[in-house]
Amino acid sequence: MESDRERAIFEAGIKLGALYHQWVGTPISRESAASIETAIEKAVILQPFVEEITVRLDSSLMNENRFGYSELAGLMFDVEIVTRVGFSYCRARLAPERGYPFMRIEEYHEIPGIPRH
Amino acid sequence: MESDRERAIFEAGIKLGALYHQWVGTPISRESAASIETAIEKAVILQPFVEEITVRLDSSLMNENRFGYSELAGLMFDVEIVTRVGFSYCRARLAPERGYPFMRIEEYHEIPGIPRH
Amino acid sequence: MESDRERAIFEAGIKLGALYHQWVGTPISRESAASIETAIEKAVILQPFVEEITVRLDSSLMNENRFGYSELAGLMFDVEIVTRVGFSYCRARLAPERGYPFMRIEEYHEIPGIPRH
Amino acid sequence: MESDRERAIFEAGIKLGALYHQWVGTPISRESAASIETAIEKAVILQPFVEEITVRLDSSLMNENRFGYSELAGLMFDVEIVTRVGFSYCRARLAPERGYPFMRIEEYHEIPGIPRH
Repeated sequence: MESDRERAIFEAGIKLGALYHQWVGTPISRESAASIETAIEKAVILQPFVEEITVRLDSSLMNENRFGYSELAGLMFDVEIVTRVGFSYCRARLAPERGYPFMRIEEYHEIPGIPRH
Repeated sequence: MESDRERAIFEAGIKLGALYHQWVGTPISRESAASIETAIEKAVILQPFVEEITVRLDSSLMNENRFGYSELAGLMFDVEIVTRVGFSYCRARLAPERGYPFMRIEEYHEIPGIPRH
Repeated sequence: MESDRERAIFEAGIKLGALYHQWVGTPISRESAASIETAIEKAVILQPFVEEITVRLDSSLMNENRFGYSELAGLMFDVEIVTRVGFSYCRARLAPERGYPFMRIEEYHEIPGIPRH
Repeated sequence: MESDRERAIFEAGIKLGALYHQWVGTPISRESAASIETAIEKAVILQPFVEEITVRLDSSLMNENRFGYSELAGLMFDVEIVTRVGFSYCRARLAPERGYPFMRIEEYHEIPGIPRH
C-alpha cells in the first residue's frame, strides 16, 4: 500500500527505536566505547533494509560513577542509518537536540529505475 | 523537510521498534499477561505523537518452561499503534507473519485542515 | 556444592540484576508508575525461588522532559525481594545509596527443619 | 552483615542476571558473534567486583530467519564470571542445562589473609 519511500522511512524509524532500547544502559567507559560502537554497527547492519550504519558514542559524557564506569545514555548516541526499499533510500539520525536524544529523517532520494524497452 | 505523513510513519516505526526491544524477554504467564499488556500501553501512550496503542499478547504461545513460566517472545506481540503529526495519521502494526514478528504500515490518512476565511 | 543459604543469595542477585536491566529506560510518568510497579512485581514473582517482591518507583524523580514524560532510571527503584532455597531465605534490596542504585543483602535466615522420628 | 564470600556470590548473581537481560534479543550472525562477545566482556569487566569474564556464544544455534540473521537467545550463552570481594572469590556460570539457560555457582575460595605480627 505504501510507497517504497514510505517503507524506507518506516524501517529507519524501527531500526533507530530498536537500537536505542537494546543498548541504552550498557556499562561503558572511554576505553570500551569503540568496542560497543562496533558491536552496535555489526548488529544493526544484519537487519533487513539496512544499507549503512555509523555509530559514534560521545565519550565526553562518559563520566565515571563512584565505581569507575558509566552507563550508555541516550544523549551519548550519534547514529546515522541508511535504509533502502526498492530504489528509495532514507537517511535518518539519532543525535542530541536541545537536551533530548532526537530521531529525525535527514533526507531521502529515489534512484530512477532503468527504463525497459 | 519531510511531510507530516512521512513524519507520522517514521514515528510509528520508532515506537514499534522501541517497544519490541524494551519488552521482549520479560517473564510472563497467562495470569500476568493482562498486567503486562496494560503496562506496555501506558508506557507507549506517554511518548510524543502517539494517539492510540493497543497491545494483545498471544497467551497460547506462553508455554511454561520447567520452572513454570514463559518469556515474552516476538511472536506473542499483536500491537496496533496510531501516530499523528499535524493532521496526518498513521496506523501501524506489529504481528506475526509467516513465523516472523512483522511490522507494517496499515494505513494513513489526512484530515483536511479547516479553511480560514 | 553451595549451601541453600548461598544459593538463595545468588538467586536474589540474579533477580535484582535482571529486573534492573529489563525495565530501566521504560517511558514512565507519575500517572503510569503504579501500573509499571505492578507489572514488574507480576513478572518477577513468576521466577523460580522468588517468594516475595515489592516494587516502589520514586515518582519525585519523574521529571518531565520537553515531551511531557520521563524514563525509568536506576535511582527511581526501591525494590525488596525475598528468595528461598530449601529452608533458607534471603531478603535483598535495590535502592539509592549515595547517588547510586545499590543492591545489597538485607538479611537471611534459616527455618529449622522438622525433626524426623 | 554478610561475609565476603556471600557478597561475592551475590555480585556474581547480579552480573549474570544483568547481562542476560541487557543482551538477549540483539541481532546476531555467525560473522558478528565474536564482536558481540567482545563487547559483552568489555561491558561487564567495568563493573565493580568483577575479576574475570569470558563470553562464548553458541553459533550452532544462530539459525537465520528469512531475513538472513538471528537474535541472541538465552540458550546461546556460555558465560563464566569471577567476582571478588576482599579475599573471597566466586566463579559462576551461565550455560544451557536441560534446555534452559541456567546460572550456577561453580566454586568459591578464600585466599588466606596475610597474618600480621
